[in-house]
Amino acid sequence: MAPVPLNLHPDRLFPADPATRGLARRLYTTVKDLPIVSPHGHTDAQWFADDTPFANATALFIVPDHYVFRMLYSQGVALEDLGIPRTAHAGEGRPLERDTRKIWRTFAAHYHLFRGTPTRMWLDHAFATVFGIDERLTPASADRYFDRINDCLGRPEFRPRALFERFKLEVIATTESPLDPLVHHRRIRDSGWKGRVVTAYRPDPVVDPEFDGFRENLREFAALTGEDTAQWGGYLAAHRNRRAFFKSMGATSTDHGHPTATTCDLPESACQRLLDRALAGTASPDEAEQFRGQMLTEMARMSLDDGLVMQIHPGSFRNHNPRIHRDFGRDKGADIPARTDYVRALKPLLDRFGNETNLTVILFTLDETVYSRELAPLAGHYPILKLGPPWWFHDSPEGMQRFREQATETAGFYNTVGFNDDTRAFMSIPARHDVARRMDCRFLATLAVEHKIGEDEAFELAPLLAYGLAKAAYRL
Amino acid sequence: MAPVPLNLHPDRLFPADPATRGLARRLYTTVKDLPIVSPHGHTDAQWFADDTPFANATALFIVPDHYVFRMLYSQGVALEDLGIPRTAHAGEGRPLERDTRKIWRTFAAHYHLFRGTPTRMWLDHAFATVFGIDERLTPASADRYFDRINDCLGRPEFRPRALFERFKLEVIATTESPLDPLVHHRRIRDSGWKGRVVTAYRPDPVVDPEFDGFRENLREFAALTGEDTAQWGGYLAAHRNRRAFFKSMGATSTDHGHPTATTCDLPESACQRLLDRALAGTASPDEAEQFRGQMLTEMARMSLDDGLVMQIHPGSFRNHNPRIHRDFGRDKGADIPARTDYVRALKPLLDRFGNETNLTVILFTLDETVYSRELAPLAGHYPILKLGPPWWFHDSPEGMQRFREQATETAGFYNTVGFNDDTRAFMSIPARHDVARRMDCRFLATLAVEHKIGEDEAFELAPLLAYGLAKAAYRL
Amino acid sequence: MAPVPLNLHPDRLFPADPATRGLARRLYTTVKDLPIVSPHGHTDAQWFADDTPFANATALFIVPDHYVFRMLYSQGVALEDLGIPRTAHAGEGRPLERDTRKIWRTFAAHYHLFRGTPTRMWLDHAFATVFGIDERLTPASADRYFDRINDCLGRPEFRPRALFERFKLEVIATTESPLDPLVHHRRIRDSGWKGRVVTAYRPDPVVDPEFDGFRENLREFAALTGEDTAQWGGYLAAHRNRRAFFKSMGATSTDHGHPTATTCDLPESACQRLLDRALAGTASPDEAEQFRGQMLTEMARMSLDDGLVMQIHPGSFRNHNPRIHRDFGRDKGADIPARTDYVRALKPLLDRFGNETNLTVILFTLDETVYSRELAPLAGHYPILKLGPPWWFHDSPEGMQRFREQATETAGFYNTVGFNDDTRAFMSIPARHDVARRMDCRFLATLAVEHKIGEDEAFELAPLLAYGLAKAAYRL
Repeated sequence: MAPVPLNLHPDRLFPADPATRGLARRLYTTVKDLPIVSPHGHTDAQWFADDTPFANATALFIVPDHYVFRMLYSQGVALEDLGIPRTAHAGEGRPLERDTRKIWRTFAAHYHLFRGTPTRMWLDHAFATVFGIDERLTPASADRYFDRINDCLGRPEFRPRALFERFKLEVIATTESPLDPLVHHRRIRDSGWKGRVVTAYRPDPVVDPEFDGFRENLREFAALTGEDTAQWGGYLAAHRNRRAFFKSMGATSTDHGHPTATTCDLPESACQRLLDRALAGTASPDEAEQFRGQMLTEMARMSLDDGLVMQIHPGSFRNHNPRIHRDFGRDKGADIPARTDYVRALKPLLDRFGNETNLTVILFTLDETVYSRELAPLAGHYPILKLGPPWWFHDSPEGMQRFREQATETAGFYNTVGFNDDTRAFMSIPARHDVARRMDCRFLATLAVEHKIGEDEAFELAPLLAYGLAKAAYRL
Repeated sequence: MAPVPLNLHPDRLFPADPATRGLARRLYTTVKDLPIVSPHGHTDAQWFADDTPFANATALFIVPDHYVFRMLYSQGVALEDLGIPRTAHAGEGRPLERDTRKIWRTFAAHYHLFRGTPTRMWLDHAFATVFGIDERLTPASADRYFDRINDCLGRPEFRPRALFERFKLEVIATTESPLDPLVHHRRIRDSGWKGRVVTAYRPDPVVDPEFDGFRENLREFAALTGEDTAQWGGYLAAHRNRRAFFKSMGATSTDHGHPTATTCDLPESACQRLLDRALAGTASPDEAEQFRGQMLTEMARMSLDDGLVMQIHPGSFRNHNPRIHRDFGRDKGADIPARTDYVRALKPLLDRFGNETNLTVILFTLDETVYSRELAPLAGHYPILKLGPPWWFHDSPEGMQRFREQATETAGFYNTVGFNDDTRAFMSIPARHDVARRMDCRFLATLAVEHKIGEDEAFELAPLLAYGLAKAAYRL
Repeated sequence: MAPVPLNLHPDRLFPADPATRGLARRLYTTVKDLPIVSPHGHTDAQWFADDTPFANATALFIVPDHYVFRMLYSQGVALEDLGIPRTAHAGEGRPLERDTRKIWRTFAAHYHLFRGTPTRMWLDHAFATVFGIDERLTPASADRYFDRINDCLGRPEFRPRALFERFKLEVIATTESPLDPLVHHRRIRDSGWKGRVVTAYRPDPVVDPEFDGFRENLREFAALTGEDTAQWGGYLAAHRNRRAFFKSMGATSTDHGHPTATTCDLPESACQRLLDRALAGTASPDEAEQFRGQMLTEMARMSLDDGLVMQIHPGSFRNHNPRIHRDFGRDKGADIPARTDYVRALKPLLDRFGNETNLTVILFTLDETVYSRELAPLAGHYPILKLGPPWWFHDSPEGMQRFREQATETAGFYNTVGFNDDTRAFMSIPARHDVARRMDCRFLATLAVEHKIGEDEAFELAPLLAYGLAKAAYRL
């Protein structure tokens, strides 16, 4: 059987109508080569600090990518067979597959599962543009893929820093816990390499009483900062201390991954009581929720002082599958979105700070029903609020289309912040930005062809959506 | 820099596909010149009673239009700088800008914020068709706009009655409180002018225990009607009295703007108890909700007697921003939609009156998720229920498209009621109806081109959606 | 007036764009003649057992079809005037219309109400393809329709078995209560007729403490099985007994129509307590919900043993209109969807069995907001979960489009199960499958034309969506 060609069609994602496609293509031409601003994501700073080669195709594309292995798992493939390592306290299970070629073949045998998914587009884009592959991944081509990718990875131009430059990354933000010493960021800075890798302050481990190891984390937080984190005042001072350190390491933003968007604005005595109970391990679920909610308001207050842009990523029911959590740990494709309210949840924070003009809070959601009902009306009124791009399961062509269709009429374009790739899959970054640029050009082309905006306006907006808004909103 | 042309393209809002666009255009030709039936809105009867000229461009387009100033506010422009007056009990703030030309320039400098929004389409439509302007609003054209509009407003053909006629308004409904003496409506009637301006009965101020001044309102309600509004029976009699008066002033409908769609069907003793507590100012939030819910059912009962069509507009979280409410008052762009249930909420009313065939209850929503899940299934079964058009944030091209796509398959067209402009922005009325007509023709054209209905049926439906259904449903 | 032609356009439901339409047409050509696999529905096995002719056009198309009469009812037509029989305990009402021709004329006079609805497409399809009618149903053609259909129904080739074969039904599943003796299924089997009609196990009457006659049902359940259904162990054994019997009559699936998707995983003592209270008629609504929820988990456990595929159809608020329920009984168009949660509701069942690889649970919904937020993420992770096709109000072109657009990017195609017609309207089965095939080909064509998948992949997927996935998922 002749190999099936892998064809990244130049018009992919553009609508079939020739007039709209033509304009979308012309718009895209003006933005496709703009540098990438990646203001939020989960790449590993160590890659750029060490600049050691990626190990092999399987370690690069399968093991770290929960989009990939969750789909195979849903169709009956054991995670062990994909080389996903088991935790220390895992129950009995299959032996871990260590033959990376065999894992790659398993992946190739299931590649058809990704038809119609963005994962398929991201992978094909990386295969074609990074590794120069021109046949589709199938069981027949699996070995050729594996050999070619591995061969490339051994070459200097496929090392992390070289790829960073080849991807035209103007700046990338990683995401770290306040407990992280940021040694890799420091080494990058000290290395003299010009790549701009900044951190972001993600305090969930010391802000969420239900986070694994919260009490130990607070002790470590005290040790790091010299503050008494058992006292509300000292605890807040510890945050201010670490925020300043993160800022000194390039951070321009914080990030908050809470189960809901709840915010609180409680008197200090109540805050101390919540902290006491959290430290005693006796906080009820409601009290844990209040603690997290209070901390969003505190973080907003600190952002007013230090200028860090605040991101809220609420609404993921983390570790929904307890067996997967026990055996494989966090971030293994078992996080499921939940219905999320913003209108009541954000009110305490908004009542306090909503009318400030030098604070930016960027809202994300996994619940698309809120685009037109809650997020666009909120962002179209409150000066502090802006809308983050479609997130996670909605970081996809249809998801982007729905976001623009449902948010733009009320919030406009200027209350949005461009694209986030939000990924730990380094190879997918150019692909994800490319999808976003194509989908935004498609949306603008449709507006212009239906005479809702002028063509000149579409050409003015395209680079803003691809580049300018992200840079401005994140103060990068 | 040469002025940018302001071009209302004749094919605007039609889809790019030539066959569909062609049919949409042909359908639109048959409806574009139909008279406007405006069965629900918030224009000021005094305009038509006094027929005095509108003051200036700023007073006409900016100060009263919360769609406009909320967007500028969201991007950091102070409401004071837009001439929005502060309330008596406002806190400290900026001085109020009184230079209307300066305000207009501020508006023009931010006009790009409206790209992709319906506000932009409405404004451009008014600029072009009412004022004959042919260049786009930009900082460079701001003064020319301001002068031209002001110049026009001084001329007789730009007075309210002349515009009413020029807009081909066959009838317009305003919305008044039961406490309103309707003097302007009486003066219009007595003036001999042929324009048909009718009122609608909006009893929120005397039906909602949480409304500002509820207790005083009930005293005034008693004084106006000679009924003892502290007794449940007298209180209902007062409503019947004012409904009859409103009906004598042309009203064919009532309107109810509640936070939820809750209805109740309580025994009379419970009603009296709720009224007692509401008058004592001791009603809990739950009791206030029950009171409002009971009153929807009472209003339905009265509508069965007097034939007024009932409208329910639930689900707005009013005055979400307390600082804006304190400093600038109600209706200042700080109302945010909330998730809204209908299936359980309407059941008490439906259990009592849902099967009547001479009662019409028109449902609106700010929560688009209910179109396919709740509203269309309810309206496709209960004889009393019909679906109002997309409302407020959803009165937009995409909002209309979603409404038709999500409601039609279950409710059909004949359980919908045509278009409402629902606006206090008089200049936007022709534009809003034009958008609705274009979007409905687009939807019908798509159905016909995809052979879901015949072309003959599309041509039969187009004038119903543009004109006939509203007139019939509202008994106008 | 010349008759209006009834034209089933060969390109119906395909998008206007010529390139996409062309590919959709080519895809459709490859699937339109595939046999129909109908894995879930509500046809009456007696039709195929007796093979007696259908009575007349009215009895065939109007009286049993709640999609039809609910729409007429919503526009003020009394159900009595449509020949819908009243229950024994009905209140006072109109006399029942028994003149089937007159009922047909009433239907024809309201046929325009169905414009834009799938009912219109299904009916036209049956009129044209089954009865060879070539003019549209209008008041003018009503009598010709009635005579022609009745004339056909008297002929041997319009008997149920002949139509079954003509419709190319490879297999059809009916749905029966555990209390059903399945005599018709046995007679079909004993008759030597080759048509494959299988049952499905729908235990709602013995699983839902709020089901009419639950206590009597459990006594009958005991009598049928020889088990003590008042004891938790005996009650479960009775289920195993009847499941085995159903399986022997061809069942490959169970089906569960609960008000919510709640599942529970309670200790046996709590189960016995719930059963005691249910049998005493003292179960609270919460306890009834727990009982149903526990039984979903028990059914999953039994499915692991006997291999029956499990279907969950949650979220219908049954008998929303109490007057219709009292006067006309169940399934009279008065069931309304309700907001439905899956993420929390399914967790107890998933915690217990979610990681099994030889269990299939197919999820349906009446709440479209869950496609992208809950169902696709769940099905894209848990091996036991698959997504059923759009159901009931969403079994429609727009509903199918939304399903594919919102579910595919996260769940892919292979976590879906093809089409269910789920109907009691036998004549509509070919039409419904035809709509599904057209809409799926349209979706695949759009993916290919926008270069998200290859054309070769679209051609591989089309027969899977039309035929293969249903057969595999339902183990038929």
